[in-house]
Amino acid sequence: MKPHLECVPCFLRQASEAILMSTDDEVVREEALREVMSYLLYEEWGKVIPELGTNVHRIVKRVTGNEDPYKQLKDECNEMASKFYSKLEPTVKNSNDPLLTAAKIAIAGNAIDFGPRIEIDIEKEVQKVLEGKLAINDIDQLKGSAQKSKDILYLADNAGETFFDRILIGELAKRDINVTYVVKGGSILNDATLRDAEMAGINSVAKVISTGTDCTGVLFSECSKHFLREFENSSLVISKGQGNYESLNDVKNKEIFFLLKIKCPIIAEDIGAKKASTVLKRFLKNE
Amino acid sequence: MKPHLECVPCFLRQASEAILMSTDDEVVREEALREVMSYLLYEEWGKVIPELGTNVHRIVKRVTGNEDPYKQLKDECNEMASKFYSKLEPTVKNSNDPLLTAAKIAIAGNAIDFGPRIEIDIEKEVQKVLEGKLAINDIDQLKGSAQKSKDILYLADNAGETFFDRILIGELAKRDINVTYVVKGGSILNDATLRDAEMAGINSVAKVISTGTDCTGVLFSECSKHFLREFENSSLVISKGQGNYESLNDVKNKEIFFLLKIKCPIIAEDIGAKKASTVLKRFLKNE
Repeated sequence: MKPHLECVPCFLRQASEAILMSTDDEVVREEALREVMSYLLYEEWGKVIPELGTNVHRIVKRVTGNEDPYKQLKDECNEMASKFYSKLEPTVKNSNDPLLTAAKIAIAGNAIDFGPRIEIDIEKEVQKVLEGKLAINDIDQLKGSAQKSKDILYLADNAGETFFDRILIGELAKRDINVTYVVKGGSILNDATLRDAEMAGINSVAKVISTGTDCTGVLFSECSKHFLREFENSSLVISKGQGNYESLNDVKNKEIFFLLKIKCPIIAEDIGAKKASTVLKRFLKNE
Repeated sequence: MKPHLECVPCFLRQASEAILMSTDDEVVREEALREVMSYLLYEEWGKVIPELGTNVHRIVKRVTGNEDPYKQLKDECNEMASKFYSKLEPTVKNSNDPLLTAAKIAIAGNAIDFGPRIEIDIEKEVQKVLEGKLAINDIDQLKGSAQKSKDILYLADNAGETFFDRILIGELAKRDINVTYVVKGGSILNDATLRDAEMAGINSVAKVISTGTDCTGVLFSECSKHFLREFENSSLVISKGQGNYESLNDVKNKEIFFLLKIKCPIIAEDIGAKKASTVLKRFLKNE
């Protein structure tokens, strides 16, 4: 997906958020934001979003000297989500449609705004997603394709959300469906890394690999050969969140299920659902 | 008020919004946004917010060749607000505290997000502000100071909001308090100009003047001598919206009442109330 005009200010907003978390030094903060602006000013905007996004965050890390600006936030998310995890399993067990409930929980994990009032928000957001309707709900196709394929490549999004993913992966495992769980190869935004997958105990229900690089979403030109082979060979992909959607919505000949909360108007228009809605959308673009 | 780091991406977001309304030409759109970025990259960030904001919007107007990007939006706002206006007068008349109700209506006018679902939003927003509590409510001081001064300089914010201001000015007029209503001297954002004041019939309840320039908020270095004299001689100021707050919260020896909805976290922190809350705040900083 290529950026729209409105994406450029949004890159800069993301950068300023990362910068504020990276350092208290006002001089370094201004220097970092100006360097990001300079990069965006002289860069081609026709590149894919993950390339621009990745470079923006790399500049922040380089100029501020903070290799993991979101570390504290990620730790807090993991802690909160781990406390909430035990409540999620019985919810799935007691549901009429455990796989749909587990998928909705995984989507709720993407919907949570991991901000300051996180404890209240987790409970509320999960309730809202479970009780509400998905704006796009291709669960029947997911069930059918998963039973046929028996193997799923599952692209993770954020730290903390990983605990919610584990619920869905657990349900898939009960149906003898194997999952390979993909996290980022290095710290970028609040995206899950190997450490976060381990904290959520994903290793006990799935094989865990990484993209091999600290990219936002999936930046194919930078991913490891190992990941590229796994992606190439996969017959079915579950993709969480906007970053992965932006990376994969041009991919040909691959059946992908996008599970996410829509947080921006550009994605909303592209996916065909309203901003703030939750979706489980099947995608298959043939050449 | 000087910009915080987060204000820089926000300037760019505002610019991209204005650009999208200014022209359909994608090449010109990119050129305009890049020129705004170039300005912000090489400009000092220690200047006051209205100076940076004004320059950003002037670049958009110059590069796109559209002297009034928000014209259509302003026309729609005026039309909607004019339809709603007749409902507002009886609300004030039947209230226990007409001046507070009128002030709340003026604040509701600032709270309305003049977007696409405007008809629904006006009704809902007015109801919400009238039934709710102001986060800061210095109405008693406003009543006292207005009775003593008998003259108020009233700084307008947006087009459409002007109809709501007229309600408050009408109530002040009933108490023999004269109002001088100040709009912008040229088109900038969706800010009210002489034309918008006239459409709302402000001329029948107040003397209407302009800042003499197309600045955001009040940029004293660019305002007309006429406005500066009026400001200097005023004993009491009512200031609507964030742009005017950013311009006046450093002013010394002037009694100002800020009426606004808080739409950004920086203003929220500065004013001492939560984002999304509505306030009527007395301000007097002595030298």
